[in-house]
Amino acid sequence: MINKLIANIKKTNAPIVVGLDPTMKLIPAFIMEKAIKEHGETLNAAGAAIWEYNKGIIDAIYEYIPAVKPQIAMYEQFGMPGLEAFDKTVRYCKEKGLVVIGDIKRGDIGSTSTAYAIGHLGSVKIGSTLLRGFDEDFVTVNPYLGSDGVKPFIEVCKEEKKGIFVLVKTSNPSSGEFQDQLVGNRKLFELVGEKVNEWAMDCMGDEYSYVGAVVGATYPEEGKMMREVMPKSFILVPGYGAQGGKGKDLVHFFNKDGLGAIVNSSRGIIGAYQQEQYASYGDQGYAEAALAAVKAMKEDITQALG
Amino acid sequence: MINKLIANIKKTNAPIVVGLDPTMKLIPAFIMEKAIKEHGETLNAAGAAIWEYNKGIIDAIYEYIPAVKPQIAMYEQFGMPGLEAFDKTVRYCKEKGLVVIGDIKRGDIGSTSTAYAIGHLGSVKIGSTLLRGFDEDFVTVNPYLGSDGVKPFIEVCKEEKKGIFVLVKTSNPSSGEFQDQLVGNRKLFELVGEKVNEWAMDCMGDEYSYVGAVVGATYPEEGKMMREVMPKSFILVPGYGAQGGKGKDLVHFFNKDGLGAIVNSSRGIIGAYQQEQYASYGDQGYAEAALAAVKAMKEDITQALG
Repeated sequence: MINKLIANIKKTNAPIVVGLDPTMKLIPAFIMEKAIKEHGETLNAAGAAIWEYNKGIIDAIYEYIPAVKPQIAMYEQFGMPGLEAFDKTVRYCKEKGLVVIGDIKRGDIGSTSTAYAIGHLGSVKIGSTLLRGFDEDFVTVNPYLGSDGVKPFIEVCKEEKKGIFVLVKTSNPSSGEFQDQLVGNRKLFELVGEKVNEWAMDCMGDEYSYVGAVVGATYPEEGKMMREVMPKSFILVPGYGAQGGKGKDLVHFFNKDGLGAIVNSSRGIIGAYQQEQYASYGDQGYAEAALAAVKAMKEDITQALG
Repeated sequence: MINKLIANIKKTNAPIVVGLDPTMKLIPAFIMEKAIKEHGETLNAAGAAIWEYNKGIIDAIYEYIPAVKPQIAMYEQFGMPGLEAFDKTVRYCKEKGLVVIGDIKRGDIGSTSTAYAIGHLGSVKIGSTLLRGFDEDFVTVNPYLGSDGVKPFIEVCKEEKKGIFVLVKTSNPSSGEFQDQLVGNRKLFELVGEKVNEWAMDCMGDEYSYVGAVVGATYPEEGKMMREVMPKSFILVPGYGAQGGKGKDLVHFFNKDGLGAIVNSSRGIIGAYQQEQYASYGDQGYAEAALAAVKAMKEDITQALG
């Protein structure tokens, strides 16, 4: 899947991933009203509205981007109907040729991490039949529990030729509270980055590893440092756009081959129609506004990378 | 909910939580065969089998224990049908008067943590109707992203009078890889424990806080230390039984009032019928074997606490 991700990036010439993170605030009123008319004020209405909203966006942008990153929390908040919309979205994006990064930030002890890995990247055996639960191409993984929480994901990645992005330095303001603590003369996230590199070397695709890392666009210096520590890992970079990260901050997240990073924007794309700049598209034009925002983001990053 | 948890512990005289962590290896063959007969070799068969297995155990033991802890990964591995069984299990346990700790180990940045918190402890608004997705009483939370990843859970806990257990020192062998790193003269998990205490003081029930912590039974010295650092936090103690923790290791996790900790056992209870000691119960007697194991665990802990 890392090979497919790279092929998709080269094809679209855009190291971009669109975060499909639907919230009630982002879904246009006309879609929500229609869903409530059909399903009443229920969680099923939320699920139906999310699916219609997502499908509109995917249909508009899929030829211009290599990958999407649905944030499962935004679906899980609506219980079972929300997760049905997640599952449907993952499957539809894959049909459209997109690489799907499930932003699930799971992580647990051994056998439990195995269950998450199987549920999102692998398969379970019922009787003599192998079946897939959720079926993303990559997932994000939380490393707080150490190697034996992460390795079960890597085992499944090896079998399935799929991948993970391990949280190293997250984009949020208080990420430093634990991640930046000095351990000897290095910060904790550096230690995690070194571990990621170890895991990555053990699990290579053609040019890059199946094991990548998450480093926030809001921390460009840390990105530069981690780029060197983990040369064969793709870096998934959240925090561009709505969280404040800009194109010029991104340069050092990339390797000299122009690869090695993929930059996420969520609200900045899927909620573009709510921004002044794209207001002329109106509610009904939310998907076209998303496409315009994708093109602007691509332009911003291309210029920054020179 | 912390008040209810304490009331339940006093009523049953058992500081015990049973981990409802179904796996294909644990579910008796007769249940699985029946489910496959009805649903074919599908994920629906797994969901149906899990539910029947869980219900049998819950019906047998609910009067003897204060709480259950379903590990969501074990359900998520079976995709949507697995999560339906999770949802059904949570609701059924609550009907039976049990406190339900969702072992979900979620944690993300601000608005995303809010979505998880709402999805598992709170409610969403669809139109003008408040609705609940999943509906546990407590959940476990991963702190790697820092305060702004944890506080959204605390906000929802305050509104709902529900609670969280924050991962401090996990029970697995490699938990020390990051958690034990020396930050100044203290280990990282001590720092996390101090933060937990801060959060806990801001969110008190009658005697104990809504904010608790996870410290593994496999690390009794660390448990003793954390007991002092977080006097008002309940400690959820995994790792008893199958993972090697024994009754005598648990003493220092408790306060002098005999409260302050709740010890989890999963396989040791729900898979008791597979152990030599309970083999006479047979497959069909799996639920009665679970009850016998609950009684033995209660006895072991009571003796240890003397």
